[in-house]
Amino acid sequence: MKAAVLGYLKERRPDYVSGEEICRSLDISRTSVWKYVSALRSEGYEIEARSRLGYRLVGTPDLLLPDEVVSGLDTLFCGQVYHHHLSLSSTNSTAQELARSGAPEGTVVLAEEQTGGRGRLSRAWISPRGGLWFSVVLRPNVLPMRAPEITFLAAVACVQALERYPGLDAGIKWPNDLVWRDRKLGGILTELSGEFDRINHVVLGIGINVNLGLDDFPSGLRSVTTSVSAITGFPVSRRRLLRELLISLEHWYRIWLTGGFSPVVEAWKRFHCWLDRPVRVVNVEGEWTGTAVGIDDDGALLLRTDDGLTKRIIAGDVLLRDGEQA
Amino acid sequence: MKAAVLGYLKERRPDYVSGEEICRSLDISRTSVWKYVSALRSEGYEIEARSRLGYRLVGTPDLLLPDEVVSGLDTLFCGQVYHHHLSLSSTNSTAQELARSGAPEGTVVLAEEQTGGRGRLSRAWISPRGGLWFSVVLRPNVLPMRAPEITFLAAVACVQALERYPGLDAGIKWPNDLVWRDRKLGGILTELSGEFDRINHVVLGIGINVNLGLDDFPSGLRSVTTSVSAITGFPVSRRRLLRELLISLEHWYRIWLTGGFSPVVEAWKRFHCWLDRPVRVVNVEGEWTGTAVGIDDDGALLLRTDDGLTKRIIAGDVLLRDGEQA
Repeated sequence: MKAAVLGYLKERRPDYVSGEEICRSLDISRTSVWKYVSALRSEGYEIEARSRLGYRLVGTPDLLLPDEVVSGLDTLFCGQVYHHHLSLSSTNSTAQELARSGAPEGTVVLAEEQTGGRGRLSRAWISPRGGLWFSVVLRPNVLPMRAPEITFLAAVACVQALERYPGLDAGIKWPNDLVWRDRKLGGILTELSGEFDRINHVVLGIGINVNLGLDDFPSGLRSVTTSVSAITGFPVSRRRLLRELLISLEHWYRIWLTGGFSPVVEAWKRFHCWLDRPVRVVNVEGEWTGTAVGIDDDGALLLRTDDGLTKRIIAGDVLLRDGEQA
Repeated sequence: MKAAVLGYLKERRPDYVSGEEICRSLDISRTSVWKYVSALRSEGYEIEARSRLGYRLVGTPDLLLPDEVVSGLDTLFCGQVYHHHLSLSSTNSTAQELARSGAPEGTVVLAEEQTGGRGRLSRAWISPRGGLWFSVVLRPNVLPMRAPEITFLAAVACVQALERYPGLDAGIKWPNDLVWRDRKLGGILTELSGEFDRINHVVLGIGINVNLGLDDFPSGLRSVTTSVSAITGFPVSRRRLLRELLISLEHWYRIWLTGGFSPVVEAWKRFHCWLDRPVRVVNVEGEWTGTAVGIDDDGALLLRTDDGLTKRIIAGDVLLRDGEQA
């Protein structure tokens, strides 16, 4: 009912709508209308009340509230169950708890800020207000060994949602980073809970530096980081971008479920950055230098090493050898 | 200190030991001695107290209490942290919670009974008093795709611990069941929590029907189930078997960490049951009939199908085609 009152106010914006009209059309009392208006105000909506004129919506908060995100969202499941938090330690951790208690596929957990945001290998992920930090619960009926493929489809979904913005031609740094001109724009953290031959759930975490300035980052990261607003030159609607990301994620997830990994790999290759550039690859088994020449059908990185051989890398960090890097 | 008092009583068993002697050697008060004796009694230890003679241990409870299991356990980490419960829904679920809160490698969770014991694919696992139902937290530094190998090493560890008992020549039904003459004796449930290229933790669940009779099972399962005591003809010490299992698990886990999967596969093959027998294999992709002819270097089941081809099965259920089966 609160959403209905808000809908009414939005529809009539910038005009006033009388309390009586809201009462009649929603079949609620004047006191109820006042209660819902108060609740909306406490969420940050600015609503003017004038005697004889009624109510008027003059400002919506810069918060990704459920009413803003889910209402009219054009997906079947991705984001249809949506949990909003002002602050969380980590949206992935909260989404995992929800997944363990049976949260349905597509459940999204979003926090305006994360106080303990995580990247791969438990590295810290800086997540102040102004970014998009969210996680999606997935329950694909595939073997656990295929879970890493979700990182690839999510990366494709993200760059395709981003490229609708002028100048936002992002690339993918294997395996899980979104970059723009060698600077980190976002990242993906896929976490799996599974058995021998079944996935219980996957939590897909996505973090994108949206409306952030350089001073939002520690000084050590400023030269290797960027944000959507820094690239486009103006703040963008996080609501619009989030909704586009959710639609794009569902689209690519369904392609993957029905068509397998190869359409994902084909799309991914178009965005592969640092191709043919000298890189260093580090993982638990060792360190190699060479040139990234592509990925194979399984998503492994193909590295042409300095001695001319092609090495298949299935996990690790890729670093540029020539100067600044994400 | 309670363990020290118990140790004293066990050492002198079946003789009495005076309260004064315990006081002196442990440097505690008479009241403290009495307090520890009461605590031990409440756990089920039968301790006689006679004036002028002192205390005497006459019976230990048939419970796998920490003092019984861990004291003198010959492992480096496996079982050195040990959580005992009279009843749990599922030891795997509790072990996962502990793992998420940072429980060290080798932490064991054991329950005398499970009220919601789980097998593969969320199937129910009957777990009344008298069996061994426990889970081990592991944190191997390998890629997540190698986690299924832990099911194989655990199966080898279990059958080797069991074969120390006369007549207990158990086999392994691919991928995760322990069987004896086509009847189910136990099972393994490996659950993984991981990222793209790192395992956060694995919870290895082991269930073995030890001192159970046919009437401990629902009538529908009686013809396909057996227990250690049903095979040997007498109840065995669950404490001894548990300790042997923990030692054997650590042994094979360390072989796997240092030597890789191939020594595990070689050992596993010796215990592969239903080899060369007509079977049916069912998984999410379909159903095949044929003869199991072995496993390959990756642990996949090799099925010679009725049309003469060899199919590689990486997940699924194997069922005998000729009558009764586990």
